[in-house]
Amino acid sequence: MTTRTSLTIVLAAGEGTRMRSSLPKVLHQVAGRPLLSHVLAAAPQEGGSRIAVVIGPDHQAVADEVKRVRPDAEIYVQRERLGTAHAVLAAKKAIAKGADDLLIAFGDTPLISAETFARLREPLSQGASLVVLGFRAADPTGYGRLVVEGDQLAAIREQADASADELKITLCNAGVMAIDGKIALEVLGQIGNANKKGEYYLTDAVGLVRARGLTASIIETDEDEVRGINTKAQLAEAEAVMQNRLRQAAMTEGVTLISPETIHLAADTTFGRDVTIEPFVVIGPGVSIADGAVIHSFSHIVDAKIGARASVGPYARLRPGTSLGDGARIGNFVETKAAQIDAGAKVNHLTYIGDAHVGANANIGAGTITCNYDGFNKHKTEIGAGAFVGSNSSLVAPVKIGAGAYIGSGSVITKAVPDDALAVERNEQTLREGWAKRFREAKARVKKPTGH
Amino acid sequence: MTTRTSLTIVLAAGEGTRMRSSLPKVLHQVAGRPLLSHVLAAAPQEGGSRIAVVIGPDHQAVADEVKRVRPDAEIYVQRERLGTAHAVLAAKKAIAKGADDLLIAFGDTPLISAETFARLREPLSQGASLVVLGFRAADPTGYGRLVVEGDQLAAIREQADASADELKITLCNAGVMAIDGKIALEVLGQIGNANKKGEYYLTDAVGLVRARGLTASIIETDEDEVRGINTKAQLAEAEAVMQNRLRQAAMTEGVTLISPETIHLAADTTFGRDVTIEPFVVIGPGVSIADGAVIHSFSHIVDAKIGARASVGPYARLRPGTSLGDGARIGNFVETKAAQIDAGAKVNHLTYIGDAHVGANANIGAGTITCNYDGFNKHKTEIGAGAFVGSNSSLVAPVKIGAGAYIGSGSVITKAVPDDALAVERNEQTLREGWAKRFREAKARVKKPTGH
Amino acid sequence: MTTRTSLTIVLAAGEGTRMRSSLPKVLHQVAGRPLLSHVLAAAPQEGGSRIAVVIGPDHQAVADEVKRVRPDAEIYVQRERLGTAHAVLAAKKAIAKGADDLLIAFGDTPLISAETFARLREPLSQGASLVVLGFRAADPTGYGRLVVEGDQLAAIREQADASADELKITLCNAGVMAIDGKIALEVLGQIGNANKKGEYYLTDAVGLVRARGLTASIIETDEDEVRGINTKAQLAEAEAVMQNRLRQAAMTEGVTLISPETIHLAADTTFGRDVTIEPFVVIGPGVSIADGAVIHSFSHIVDAKIGARASVGPYARLRPGTSLGDGARIGNFVETKAAQIDAGAKVNHLTYIGDAHVGANANIGAGTITCNYDGFNKHKTEIGAGAFVGSNSSLVAPVKIGAGAYIGSGSVITKAVPDDALAVERNEQTLREGWAKRFREAKARVKKPTGH
Repeated sequence: MTTRTSLTIVLAAGEGTRMRSSLPKVLHQVAGRPLLSHVLAAAPQEGGSRIAVVIGPDHQAVADEVKRVRPDAEIYVQRERLGTAHAVLAAKKAIAKGADDLLIAFGDTPLISAETFARLREPLSQGASLVVLGFRAADPTGYGRLVVEGDQLAAIREQADASADELKITLCNAGVMAIDGKIALEVLGQIGNANKKGEYYLTDAVGLVRARGLTASIIETDEDEVRGINTKAQLAEAEAVMQNRLRQAAMTEGVTLISPETIHLAADTTFGRDVTIEPFVVIGPGVSIADGAVIHSFSHIVDAKIGARASVGPYARLRPGTSLGDGARIGNFVETKAAQIDAGAKVNHLTYIGDAHVGANANIGAGTITCNYDGFNKHKTEIGAGAFVGSNSSLVAPVKIGAGAYIGSGSVITKAVPDDALAVERNEQTLREGWAKRFREAKARVKKPTGH
Repeated sequence: MTTRTSLTIVLAAGEGTRMRSSLPKVLHQVAGRPLLSHVLAAAPQEGGSRIAVVIGPDHQAVADEVKRVRPDAEIYVQRERLGTAHAVLAAKKAIAKGADDLLIAFGDTPLISAETFARLREPLSQGASLVVLGFRAADPTGYGRLVVEGDQLAAIREQADASADELKITLCNAGVMAIDGKIALEVLGQIGNANKKGEYYLTDAVGLVRARGLTASIIETDEDEVRGINTKAQLAEAEAVMQNRLRQAAMTEGVTLISPETIHLAADTTFGRDVTIEPFVVIGPGVSIADGAVIHSFSHIVDAKIGARASVGPYARLRPGTSLGDGARIGNFVETKAAQIDAGAKVNHLTYIGDAHVGANANIGAGTITCNYDGFNKHKTEIGAGAFVGSNSSLVAPVKIGAGAYIGSGSVITKAVPDDALAVERNEQTLREGWAKRFREAKARVKKPTGH
Repeated sequence: MTTRTSLTIVLAAGEGTRMRSSLPKVLHQVAGRPLLSHVLAAAPQEGGSRIAVVIGPDHQAVADEVKRVRPDAEIYVQRERLGTAHAVLAAKKAIAKGADDLLIAFGDTPLISAETFARLREPLSQGASLVVLGFRAADPTGYGRLVVEGDQLAAIREQADASADELKITLCNAGVMAIDGKIALEVLGQIGNANKKGEYYLTDAVGLVRARGLTASIIETDEDEVRGINTKAQLAEAEAVMQNRLRQAAMTEGVTLISPETIHLAADTTFGRDVTIEPFVVIGPGVSIADGAVIHSFSHIVDAKIGARASVGPYARLRPGTSLGDGARIGNFVETKAAQIDAGAKVNHLTYIGDAHVGANANIGAGTITCNYDGFNKHKTEIGAGAFVGSNSSLVAPVKIGAGAYIGSGSVITKAVPDDALAVERNEQTLREGWAKRFREAKARVKKPTGH
C-alpha cells in the first residue's frame, strides 16, 4: 500500500445557497477549521500523494485556504455545473499526470477520516478497479442505493430509478470513490449525459467499469462520517459529532473532562498527563496543555501554550501568542495576548497582559493593565523575575520593570524601574472630615419635594 | 376567516402550588417571557380579536403583566374554584359582548402557536359548532380521551370514566377549545355539576353541542405544544422545547450557531445575514443583531442593538439601552449600559461604559470606568469621535471628552477635555533604589523562627 | 432495623490504571467530591455503624481523605492483590470486633445511595444470611449473572463459567453484599483460591452460605447506581447521572433552574424558597442559597453563603469564605474571597474584594481593588456601613474606611478614613490643547513611506 501513489480530487465548487451565507460553503467551520481543511487533512499525506481541489469560479477565498493548508495542492476551477463527473474532469490535467489510486472526495464532508481513505484504497491494491464508500442509512430516502451482486457492487441506483425491492436497500452511496489510476481518465471520459437533467454523473463509472469485466467493490463506513453539510443545522450537527469525537479521544488519553458535553475542543488540541478541564471551556486552534495543568470553568483559549501544573481561570482568556511556564497561574477576568509568562508567575485577577514578558515568580496585582497601544503602535512591557506589581497599576509600554522590583498600588509607570527598586506614582491622601455627611444631606434636600 | 371576530379567554387563575413558589404560576418564565405572555402573543391579534384573561384573586401581578402585554385585554377574577367551565364563565360579560369565535386557552401552555389557534378556528368557519384541540399522547394515562365517531368528536372521556377500549385511545384532549360564538354562552350555561367533585367541566360542552344536532370537530397538534406546566421540572422542559424551536428557526434563517444547544435565545431576537454566535451565549429579550456581527462565547446580552459587522465578547455583557454602531467592538470583561457606541469604536477590555455616548472610532483603553453614579444620581459621559482614552482611566460623570482628545493612562478626568487636547491626571513617578530588596529581607526575617 | 449495628467495609485499594492518572482512582471526583467520599456518605451513619476502608499501599492521600470525611473510620492496607475476598479480609480485625450486619461496598461506585444500603440490610433483619445487590443490565456481557432458585439466590455465575441459558440472564451482580455478622468471618475465611487465577473471590460466599442451609437473597437496584468507574469516560458519565439527580432534586424543592442541563451543582448545595439559577452556572461544595436569591448566568461559586434576595452575577466569582447578607448584590466581573458583605451592600462591577468586610448598604464602585497582599502576607480591609467607594479605587490593606465615608474615584487609600469623611488621592487634571492632533500628525508622518 505505502508504495502506491495517489491523487485525491476534492470537489469543493458548491455555492451552498442553503447555508444562506455569502461565505462559500466549504469555508464554514467545524471545530475551528473550515470544512474543506478537515477533508484535506484526512486525505493521504504520505510521499507520492497529490491533492487537487476543484473550486467554483470567484472562490478565491477557497483557493487561499487550500494554499494555506496544502501549499502543494493543485487548484482547478469548474466553470459550469454539469454534474459530479464533469466536476472531477475539471481536474483532468491532474489525473493525466498519473497516480496508482484516484480518490474522489467532497469538500463538505468534514468528518471523513484518514483511516477511511486508507480502507478505500485497499481493494485497489488487491485488484479491484473501483471502490465506492457506502453507509447504512437510518433513512435511505433520497440516497443512491448500492446494489450488490455477490461480494461486488453491481450498480448505484438513484432513488428515482429504483425498483420497489431496490428502495428497501439501506446500504447507500456516500459519494466518495476510488478508481484505479490506470483506467480513471478513460472511464471518466466515457460517462455521458443522456439523462433527464443532461448531467454527467460520477455514479455511471460503476457500470462502465463492470462493462469492462473489472471489479467494483464497496467499503462501508458509519453514516455520521459521510454526511454532507448543506444547511446551518447540518453544520451544527457535524460540530456536535466532531466535538464528541475529540472529547472521547481526550478522555481515552486520560484527560479529565468534567461534563465533557460543555467543553469545546479544537481538532489540534494536545494534552499532557493528568490534565483537568472544568465545565464551560472553549479551546480554539493551536493549544497545547502540559502535564497536570488545570483549566477552570469559563476559560477561553486560542493559540496558546500552557505549561505543566499551570492553573488557568476561571474566566481566563488566553489569546494568541500566550505562553505559560510551569506552575504559572492566570486567574479570573484576566486577558493575555502575545504574552510570555514564566514559571511560577501569578496574574490572578482583572488584568490585561498584552505584548509582554512576565518573569518567573513575578506577582501581578489585581487590576493591572499593560498599556500596550498608543492609538498607533503596540509596544512591549518587560517585567523581571520576582517583581511585584501592585494592584490597579498601569504599565505604559514600552517600559521595563526590573527583577525583584516593587510597584506601589495604583501607579502609572512610564519610566524604567531598576531591579529591586520601589516605584510609586501617587499623591498625598487628603481628607475632608464630615464632607460625606454634608453631601448626603444636600442630596437628600434636593430629592425632597419643596412645594415651589 | 379574516372577517370573523374572535374572543380568546385565557384561563390563568391557577395557584400552581406544585411550583413551590410565591409567584403565581403563569408568571414563571420561558425564554425570558412569562408563560401567560406567550399565550397572549399566540392568541389572535388581528382586528376584531378580543382577549379576556381569568385570573385568581390577589393576583394583581398577573393583571399587571396582562396590561403590559395586551393593554386592551379584559381581566376577570375567578373567586371560587368550581371547574373549568366555571372559570370560563367568570368572563361571562366578555362572552356576552359577542364574537364569531370563542376560543378557550390556558395560561400555562406557553408553547402553543398562533398557527394552532388559526387552525382551531377553521372548522367553525366551515360550519362546526365546537372544535377541540387534540394530541397523540406518548402515554395517555390521566388525559381525557377523544372518542371519535366518523370524522366527528363524540365525547371527551376522562380516565376514570373510560371503558377498557376507550383507555386504549391515544388521541387526548389538550384542553384548548373553540366554540361558535352564537351558542357559546347558552351551552356554557347549561353545563351542570352533577358529578363526584361537584365541578363544572368544560368538556361537557361536547355532549351539549352534539345533543343539539350540531357538529363537534377535532384539530390535532403535537404533544409538545400543549403540555401544561405544573412543576419546575416541566418549566425546564418547556424552556428546552422553546429554545430548540428558536435555535432551529435561527439556523434556518442562516445564522451560524456553533453548538446551538449552548446558546440561549429570546423569543424576540432578530438576526441579519451571516451572523455568527459562538458557544455559551445568553441572549435576553429585546436584542437585534445586524448583518455579519459575531457574538463570541460567554456573552450576555439584553435589550441591545448590535450593528453590522460588530464584534461582541467573549465575556461581554451588554445591558439594556446598549446600541452598537457598525463595526464596533466590545471585548472581554466589558459591561455596557444605556450606552451608545458609534461605528468603529472599540471598547476592548475590562471596562464599564454606563450612561455614555462613545463617538465613532473612539478607542477606550483597558480598565476604563465611566463613574456614572455618585451615590444618588446617574450622570452622563460623552466621548467624542476618534478620542483615545488611556487605560485604567476614570471618567467622572457628568463629563465630556472632546473629539480626537487623548487621555493619559490612569487619569481621573473630572473636567471637560476640549477636542484634540491631551488631558492627564498624574503625579511624578518616584523611585527608591533597593527598597524592594530591603523589604523582602525584612519580611523574611519576620518569618524566621526567632527563638524568643 | 435501627437497633442493629453494622460494619461497612469499603474496598478502595484499586490503582485505576485505566484512568491514566497518578491520582488513586477513588480520589477522582464527581460533583466536586471524591468517589470514595460519596460511598462513605451513603454508608450507614447512625449510632452503632462503623466503617472500615481497605486502601492500597502508598495511598496516603486516600487515607487522608477518609480521615477528613469519617474521622472514626478504620483504615486497612491491602498489600497484595489476591481477589475481592482477600481485600475484605485485610479488614479482618474490624470484622472480628463484631457487628450485626457486615456490608461490603466499593470505593469507585459514587452513585450508590443510603437507601440502597438500608434496603440491603433488611433481609438480614428478617433472617437472611447473605444479600447481594443486583441490577438488570442493558447488556449483561462480562458481568456475573445472579442465578435464582425460587426467591433465593442460588449462585453468582461469572461470564466465563456460565451456560448458554445462564448467559441469557440479565440480572447481574453489582458487587455490593451484606452478610450476617455472626457468620461473616467464618464464611470469608472458608473462601479458597482453587481457580484459574488463584484468587479469593467474594462471590464464593454465596455457595458457602447456601451449603450451610442458610438463605441468600437479592435486592435489585438501577444499573446507574452501581456502575463502577474505571475510565475518564465513565467518570464523566457518573458526573452526568449525579448532576441530573441533583438538578431534579433541586427542581422538586422548587428551585427554578433555567436550562438545568447547563447548571452544575454540588452534592451539598442547599436552597431556600424561590431561588432562581440562570444558565451556565457552576456551584462547588459548601454553598447555601437563601430565599429569593438569584444566581445569574456565568457565575462560579464555592464555599459561600448567599443571603435572601441577594443577586449574584452574571460573571460573579464567589470564592471560599464569602458571605452575602440579605439583598446584597454582586455584579459582573467581580471576585470575592474571605469577604463578608453585609445586607444591601453593592459590588456591581469589575472588582476584587478579598479578606474584607463590607458594611450594610455600602456601595463599591466599578474597578475597586482591595490590595490585600503585599507579596508576603494577606491583610484585611474594613469598609463601614453606608460607605461609598468611588470607581477604580485601590484600598491598600490593612485599612479601614469608616461608616458613611466617601472615597473619590481613582484614589489609592493607604490610611484610615474616618466615618462620614471624604478621602481623595489625586492630582490636578492638566490639559495640553491641540496635543492629540499634533501627536496624530506626527504618527501619520512616521507611517508614510519617506523615500529615504
